[in-house]
Formats: sequence, structure tokens, C-alpha cells
Amino acid sequence: MKVSELGEFGLIDLLAKMVNSTQDNRVEAWQQLIIGMGSDDTTAWYGDASIQLATVDSFVQDVHFSLGITSWRELGWKALAANLSDIAAMGGVPRYALVSLALPDHTEVDDVTALYQGMIELAQQFDVAIVGGDTTSAHVVTITITILGRTRGQDTQILTRSGAKPGEKVAVTGYLGTAAAGWEMLTRHLQFDPEVTTCLKGAFLHHYPRIAEGQLLVEQGVKTAIDISDGLISDLNHICKASQVSARIEVERVPTLPIVKANFGDRAQELALAGGEDYELLFTGSAEVMDKVRTAVSCPVTVIGDITADKPGKVTLVDEKGNPVKPSKAGWEHFITR
Amino acid sequence: MKVSELGEFGLIDLLAKMVNSTQDNRVEAWQQLIIGMGSDDTTAWYGDASIQLATVDSFVQDVHFSLGITSWRELGWKALAANLSDIAAMGGVPRYALVSLALPDHTEVDDVTALYQGMIELAQQFDVAIVGGDTTSAHVVTITITILGRTRGQDTQILTRSGAKPGEKVAVTGYLGTAAAGWEMLTRHLQFDPEVTTCLKGAFLHHYPRIAEGQLLVEQGVKTAIDISDGLISDLNHICKASQVSARIEVERVPTLPIVKANFGDRAQELALAGGEDYELLFTGSAEVMDKVRTAVSCPVTVIGDITADKPGKVTLVDEKGNPVKPSKAGWEHFITR
Repeated sequence: MKVSELGEFGLIDLLAKMVNSTQDNRVEAWQQLIIGMGSDDTTAWYGDASIQLATVDSFVQDVHFSLGITSWRELGWKALAANLSDIAAMGGVPRYALVSLALPDHTEVDDVTALYQGMIELAQQFDVAIVGGDTTSAHVVTITITILGRTRGQDTQILTRSGAKPGEKVAVTGYLGTAAAGWEMLTRHLQFDPEVTTCLKGAFLHHYPRIAEGQLLVEQGVKTAIDISDGLISDLNHICKASQVSARIEVERVPTLPIVKANFGDRAQELALAGGEDYELLFTGSAEVMDKVRTAVSCPVTVIGDITADKPGKVTLVDEKGNPVKPSKAGWEHFITR
Repeated sequence: MKVSELGEFGLIDLLAKMVNSTQDNRVEAWQQLIIGMGSDDTTAWYGDASIQLATVDSFVQDVHFSLGITSWRELGWKALAANLSDIAAMGGVPRYALVSLALPDHTEVDDVTALYQGMIELAQQFDVAIVGGDTTSAHVVTITITILGRTRGQDTQILTRSGAKPGEKVAVTGYLGTAAAGWEMLTRHLQFDPEVTTCLKGAFLHHYPRIAEGQLLVEQGVKTAIDISDGLISDLNHICKASQVSARIEVERVPTLPIVKANFGDRAQELALAGGEDYELLFTGSAEVMDKVRTAVSCPVTVIGDITADKPGKVTLVDEKGNPVKPSKAGWEHFITR
């Protein structure tokens, strides 16, 4: 059945039923909910005195995703995961998601429910309640997700982009370039071993936002973080601009998976520096804080460079001997014609 | 200059500067703000224990609006006003707006700033702080606005769709059909007196959400309301379904402006019943509550019918003698092919 046959209200009813059947009263976000999806003019829940967080992002067909390489279910997961990552980058707890869907009339209802299934799977893993949204007609699919979150406690700090200080170390969680490698594999139809294929595809389409890690960073005294969505250099540049500092990254230290090196050779470094969509956390802190973080979190944490007092906003890449390295691409930015 | 020349980050910086220059620390939403637009991974503000409200809506070019009849500035006002109306329908106080813009690469930067100017004008009138959002590339303009609001006090009730009871009166604020008449005038290039033209255009493109009225409804004991976005019959049907009641509307009582009657003749009634986009409040309550509301609010309030105990969800239209009247169109619903 097409969405045009079901109609806007029929579609909202169907999606609201799906979402509301996942209600779990052991989860605090559901406990505090007064009005959820599909039943009133707005969503409503009981507030509290912690710091509140909100973020919104749109995903546009053939700009941010292609249905040629992404299933609807994967798309649902990925769109929500990308937004949850912004809450992770603040050290926050995500609670509520509102989803606005613009869909062509000929979209299959089964595809829309698969999209929601992907979102629901991820939402359940992170105790997020999907509580609202609308559906409208459009020429291409556009998914806009708003996430509302908060700090873990009333006196808990948040991670900002503006707290980096010269002398601090720069570190990342996990490995970089894997998602970009996955994207290249899928768009260029590259053939690899099944294990490699699964790993790269998973990094691009099925990543886990670093929610727990973000909260642990706050606990261990980190003040400054961002999630890597546009690419390491681009996102580090955001920190440097906001903090009015500069950074020096030793490119050989940037962690990449051996399978990316093995299959992409010299390009692995470029993917790691500028690839984007890994949604790892990039953060700064003293050497002592970094040691504490490494013990506290269960994922790899790698120091890749230093915050310096050079020209504000400047990111310098050096090799192991300290010689400058020129990046070939600065990261992903919309509207700039490539 | 085109947005493709300025780039995503340049555009966000420009819009953030515009918005942040409107910061007003006499306004509570700005006072409580920790991180606003354009500076971090999420927006952040100090929470409180009132009931929290959130709503999101997308406006898609050539589905919800046409740049042929709407200027960018009017579009900004209208998109924000429509979303604020959902907060009004809950009796809430709007506080924060997050705006996600999808724009074709060839969009003029001046048009985008005009769009923001329209939003800012309205936001300032209702003490709303624009605090976040993103911009992305797309084939057509899509504006998605998330509004975060709350109840006026910690123990304040909200207006829902589900509290209507048989025996209650049904009432509306203001006049209906004026926005639809404005839309017809603009799309069909109808020629009227300058005064009529201004009035109809204003109703369609420059309406004021009933924020103060929504809060006064709560104060006067109203429990049930919705804003008329899809059309009187369609939106009353939402109340009836959610409340498991029915309603009988005396069509002659539905308030329309004399200029709509004078210029649209017999069609005025249809515009009032099914036109939509008036963003007036439709609510139910006892006759005593209606009297109190009429005294409390400064806009017209008209009782147009009763809540009945007929088949749940059913809306019956009758003439002054109680004889049934058949509506020609039930309201606006996306995806249903007309």
C-alpha cells in the first residue's frame, strides 16, 4: 500500500501505534511522559531542574543518503544515531525524539514502517522514547529528527566546544575512517571479504552513538568535546574556533582499523582525517584526565595531538618527525560546490 | 550571493549572528539559555519542574507554500506562527525554537536572511528565543521548526483533545475561513478593494497565534482545545475521536467576516467549515465556562454547537432549524489524492 492510499492521519495512527507499543514504564523517559505521539497538538512530559539539551538535524534523500545503498530500516537507525551522537557530544542523556517525515506520495507504507522499526530498535537500546512528529507530502524523502535530552543529574556539567586550552591533549574514541571506507565500498561497488564488507557496512550504516562514553567523559573531568560527523579536521576546527586555540595532530597516531589500511592503502589516512560520519567523540583534556578516561571507558581512546596557542582555529597536521602534512580534503560541508 | 557561495558553516554563522543579536535578557527564555544557536552540538538551557511541551512541523515548498504568492519574510512568519499555534492549543508558553532549513544551492542568501527576519519578528513578539537548527542542501525549500514550551506554572494544567464531554458547548476564537479566502484570492488572482486584499492576505500569511488566549482558556477552566489548522470539521473530528464523543455544529453560527461573505457569497460557509489555516482555537466547556472565557479574552468567542453522545468521532452539521447540512469538503489531509 502507498502512503497516498492510507492518508496522512492513517499513517500517523499506524506509526503512533508502532511507537506506543514499545512504551516501557521501567524507562524514566516513558514514566515522565504525559502525552506521546499522535494524540494531541504537542508532546508533553514532566520537567526537571537538570540542564536541558535539544538538537535537530535533517536528512535529505540524495544529499545525505541514497536508498540505492541504504535500506529503509538502516536509514531509520542511521538518522536517529547521528542525532543521538550530538547529545553524546554534550555528555548528555537522550530522552525524547520527535520525527518529521516528508515523503513522496508513492512511498510504500511498509518502507515507512521499516524506517520506524530501525529508529525504534536504536531508541530502545538507549532508553529514548519516540514521542511525536508529523508526516507531510514531498518530492524526496526528508527525515528531520529533534532529540531532547538533559544532563544526568542536576549539578552535572556539559561538554562544550569552547573549553579547550593550550597544553591539553587531543583524543578520540574508537577508530576513524571506517564509515567513509564503508561509504566508498557501497557507492563504488568494491568487493571485499564478507567479514570486511560486514564491518565497513556496519560502520557506515549501523553505528552506536557514544552516549555512555560522553557521560563518562564528563565524570572524568573532560570539559571539551564534539562528535566527528563532518570529519576529524573539520570538527577539530570547530573546537579550535570556539575555544580560540589551535591544534597540532600527528597523523600517524590517528587510529584506523587494520582492515581499512589493508583494503584502502594510502587512502586510509585521508578517510580517517576527512571522511566523517564515524560519530566518534573528539575531546581535549590534560594528560592525567586522558589516563582516567582510558581506564573508565570500554572503547579504545587514542591521544592524537595537542592543543596549541597558534592562530585561533588553525589545525596543523604533522608526521612523526614533526614535518607538516597537507590534507587533501577538509571534510564535508553542504552547499560548497565540489 | 547564493548559499552555495557562502557554504553551510558561513550561512549558519550569519543566521546565528542575526538571531543572537536579538537576545533580550529581560525575556525569561533568553535568561535561562546556556548555549544558543550555532555554537555547539546542541542547544542547552536550565530546566524547571513545569510540564514541558514540544512540537515539530515541516513546511515543504509547493506542498505547504508557494514562493509565487508568499515572500520569504512572510514564509518565515507563517511557518513559525503555525508551530506556535500548537503550543497555544495546549495553553502553553512557547520558549525555544529550533529551525532546520533545507535549501537549493542557488537560493539567495538575502532570501534566507529575509526568512529569518520574518521568524525573528514573530519570535520577539512572543518572547521566543531561536536557539538552534541546521541548514542542508536540497532540491526544494523545506523548513522544519521545533518549538519547545511549557506550562505557565508548575501546577498549571494543559489543554488536551481528549477531555470533551456530552453536554458541553463548542466554541471558537475569532473568525473562520478568512485564511482560506486569502489563499483563494492569491492563487486565483482575484481582485478586491485594497482593504479587503490586505485583510485576506494578512489572515493567510501574517496571523497571530492565540498564545495568550490559550493560557486564558486554561485559567478559566477549559480542559479541551485544538487549533484549527486543517479546517473546522477536520479538527473538531480530532477532538471527537480523542474524547470518544460526537458534536453537532449549527453552521449559521460559525463566525465569518462580513468581507468574506460579501466577496465569496455562498462559498464563505465552505471556507469557514473546511478551509483551514485560520489557527483559531476550537474548544469545549460548560455554558458557564464559556461565559467566563468570553469575559476574559479580548478576541471574539462564538459558541457554534454542542458536544453530543452520538457515534464517537461523528461531526454533524445542522442548519438553524436543526436539519442536516452536508459539507462539501472535510479539510486538508496530506497524501490523499484529490
